[in-house]
Amino acid sequence: MSAVRAERVNATRAQILAAAERLFAERGVYAVSNRQVSQVAGQGNNAAVGYHFGTKADLVRAIVRAHTERVELLRRRLLAEVEGSDDVRDWVGCLVRSFTGHLDDLGPPTWYARFAAQVMTDPALRLIMAEEALNSPTLRRVVDGLRRCLPELPPEVHAERADMAGQLVVHMCAERERALAEGRPTLRPSWHDAATGLIDAVVGIWTAPVTAPVAAPVTTSVTTPVTAAGRNTA
Amino acid sequence: MSAVRAERVNATRAQILAAAERLFAERGVYAVSNRQVSQVAGQGNNAAVGYHFGTKADLVRAIVRAHTERVELLRRRLLAEVEGSDDVRDWVGCLVRSFTGHLDDLGPPTWYARFAAQVMTDPALRLIMAEEALNSPTLRRVVDGLRRCLPELPPEVHAERADMAGQLVVHMCAERERALAEGRPTLRPSWHDAATGLIDAVVGIWTAPVTAPVAAPVTTSVTTPVTAAGRNTA
Repeated sequence: MSAVRAERVNATRAQILAAAERLFAERGVYAVSNRQVSQVAGQGNNAAVGYHFGTKADLVRAIVRAHTERVELLRRRLLAEVEGSDDVRDWVGCLVRSFTGHLDDLGPPTWYARFAAQVMTDPALRLIMAEEALNSPTLRRVVDGLRRCLPELPPEVHAERADMAGQLVVHMCAERERALAEGRPTLRPSWHDAATGLIDAVVGIWTAPVTAPVAAPVTTSVTTPVTAAGRNTA
Repeated sequence: MSAVRAERVNATRAQILAAAERLFAERGVYAVSNRQVSQVAGQGNNAAVGYHFGTKADLVRAIVRAHTERVELLRRRLLAEVEGSDDVRDWVGCLVRSFTGHLDDLGPPTWYARFAAQVMTDPALRLIMAEEALNSPTLRRVVDGLRRCLPELPPEVHAERADMAGQLVVHMCAERERALAEGRPTLRPSWHDAATGLIDAVVGIWTAPVTAPVAAPVTTSVTTPVTAAGRNTA
């Protein structure tokens, strides 16, 4: 392929990715056809999406991958600043700000948070997010760092809280992005401040005392705190 | 309408609601047509959904409403046990166990958590969830109870944490339901135990110290805890 042709292909692919991400975020991944994406991307050929990306799942994967590469770079930079820390807040900061900082870097308006929230929730697409974004080496370093800060946390509770942190960050960012897009007021003025609120909450999750499970009582409302893991807050 | 005819209509509507909820949870709300719902519901007439419910949004609303009525009843019972409490954990227990207890009452397999997570995340459908489920009188009583337990929490942080709690509960329950449906291992053996883990986490969110926002630094990783709200843990 000539250099000029390669450049044109890259530009077309970038246009399709941008159009798809926006349409998916605004209308829903399944409500939008590949044909509509091709049209909004300014492609004369309605089959452009299929030609350049394959199926809708392939297109979704390409969008996730493009963002994940940039989130990875940012998270690597953030990790360099906290390496060796035994403060839960430092590691949670890497987790949260690698996502909010990426949205901030993209500049308004963004669509990725709403897109990512849908992909994480969709029965058919969620595996793509798991394979592309959650399997990252820097994310594993964050989780390992948290494990070192909280050695008394049972492994299954650690896994549960990692899952909770991920769900909370992506869905709350999607909520904020949606409010911005619809011109509704947001609780925090910037992504930086929204991240601060999220970090407080995620530190709260990770350092919360662990209630040992007890046999389910006859009514469903009683739970007795039996043991509590030590707190390790900033 | 005669009693017999009314009964037949009610049975048909119940079959359609059950089929729709299941198909939406398993395949995605937009990936399923009203025609497919009618077929799986055993309706000879492919237009049965339209005849009985109207649009897909109306059908989604009817499913949310049917569940919300039962969640309300359960939450009212749970609230009666904690009325007047100044323990954050009691109120969070009502919030979490009214949802997990409902899923438990439905018996396996359930589809509602996955369905609710999609509806909450979908750009076009989320308003339905807000209008039907989040506008409930018992939910307001829970939020008021939490406000009384944590009077030092700034109102906007209170609102933010209420939002976080809702997102976390629905999305984590959806994750668990999906694991059950796919025969994958779950971190907790029962809805009751899953709720215990969620209650720990949501109490952690609600009682986490509040970091005052500071001006965004040049790098995105630094946040200084300036003031902290008092903790009010069990």
